[in-house]
Amino acid sequence: MLSALPSTELGFVPTMGALHAGHAALLSRAAAENQTSLLSVFVNPTQFDDPSDYQQYPINLARDIEIAESLGIDYFFAPTDPAMLYPDHYTYQVMENAHSLIMEGAMRPGHFNGMLTIVLKLLLLIRPQRLYLGEKDYQQLTLIQGMAAAFFLDVEIIGCPTVRDAQGLALSSRHARLNSAEKTQAYRFAQHFHTCETSEALQSALENDGIQIEYIHEKNNRRYIAVKIGDIRLIDNKEIPPC
Amino acid sequence: MLSALPSTELGFVPTMGALHAGHAALLSRAAAENQTSLLSVFVNPTQFDDPSDYQQYPINLARDIEIAESLGIDYFFAPTDPAMLYPDHYTYQVMENAHSLIMEGAMRPGHFNGMLTIVLKLLLLIRPQRLYLGEKDYQQLTLIQGMAAAFFLDVEIIGCPTVRDAQGLALSSRHARLNSAEKTQAYRFAQHFHTCETSEALQSALENDGIQIEYIHEKNNRRYIAVKIGDIRLIDNKEIPPC
Repeated sequence: MLSALPSTELGFVPTMGALHAGHAALLSRAAAENQTSLLSVFVNPTQFDDPSDYQQYPINLARDIEIAESLGIDYFFAPTDPAMLYPDHYTYQVMENAHSLIMEGAMRPGHFNGMLTIVLKLLLLIRPQRLYLGEKDYQQLTLIQGMAAAFFLDVEIIGCPTVRDAQGLALSSRHARLNSAEKTQAYRFAQHFHTCETSEALQSALENDGIQIEYIHEKNNRRYIAVKIGDIRLIDNKEIPPC
Repeated sequence: MLSALPSTELGFVPTMGALHAGHAALLSRAAAENQTSLLSVFVNPTQFDDPSDYQQYPINLARDIEIAESLGIDYFFAPTDPAMLYPDHYTYQVMENAHSLIMEGAMRPGHFNGMLTIVLKLLLLIRPQRLYLGEKDYQQLTLIQGMAAAFFLDVEIIGCPTVRDAQGLALSSRHARLNSAEKTQAYRFAQHFHTCETSEALQSALENDGIQIEYIHEKNNRRYIAVKIGDIRLIDNKEIPPC
């Protein structure tokens, strides 16, 4: 039976493991800014719309622990049985009926409800003062901020800049599944994303390279994109000047 | 902007106001068992499936405050503008997809999701150690207990026996809207509910009296019933011997 940690100043980084430099940036900051810090690793079944994506999701707990320790993280929380976090047998969930239905929400039905549900469970179990999230999934970040406001959660939600590799590709645990030709395509995607000034130009450039676009969407001075390379989805976003 | 109360031993009674002796029993117990106690009065729009029921719901804050004070309640929380509790413009909600869909949930689509949503908001805002609820809506009680377990809420949920009048009718704020002929029917309902030994006998007795049955349902050694008298729904439940 899980119960809440005692109250202290706690920085929390929720992840699905397979840590990369993007996670490391969050962990370093959580360790630096809080008395105590906690990493969770939990591959949450309810946020996968695609069962094969869930089955193939990379897991490497030993390496994750090593990384977290080296970055000064105090606690590691990695429930291996989903029933520990879903004692309700998946009967209760958090839903959002507006912003969660576009972009990633439209491409991945139910994804954000599953994500919000697990984040709320983790926040109420772990009771951190600060939650650290990457800006790569900016829609996720804003949905969690909205949930925190809607339910009066006493937690500061801190969005951290997306970490990219030397070619400008936003890091993702799913990159491990790209083959060499797909990796080349992924770099072309990143290059176009950074250099094209308009959504229209970006769309043309990607289409010329035969890259499958799931959406390009502008909202609140931010451009969001998702593409599919092989069977891997890549997402990114950046601020754009106001019109 | 609402923010959480400081942590102390707090007993909480959430209501929609128009307090009667059933509420008074909860308030007395909350006042007796906790250092501090709080009554909330909020007619929650999201749990009404019937707009005219929402419009007609009785409100008498001055009298509610008087009753609460006389029973030793320390705090009174009565947000008059729903936007205070729904800064999210009703975009986030808690859903339950099993027990909430039968009985009251089947008769009142969306009712329990609205109820769970407001209870979670209130619990996270008020952070009580104990929550007091009547057993009259036993389905509501079990759904809130389930939500507390699903989201690891650090609160004790205390179900208190249903308070009935001299004729055995479970008290309800909506009784104020029964006319004299309807009140007679309501008492017949209560009488049959208490005296009939089986659901079948109960159904026959109610039908003989021309009382409209919404459901009679047995689950976990408990008999649940809802009837409609005029445009007022009445519910009740009681333990029954195991088969």
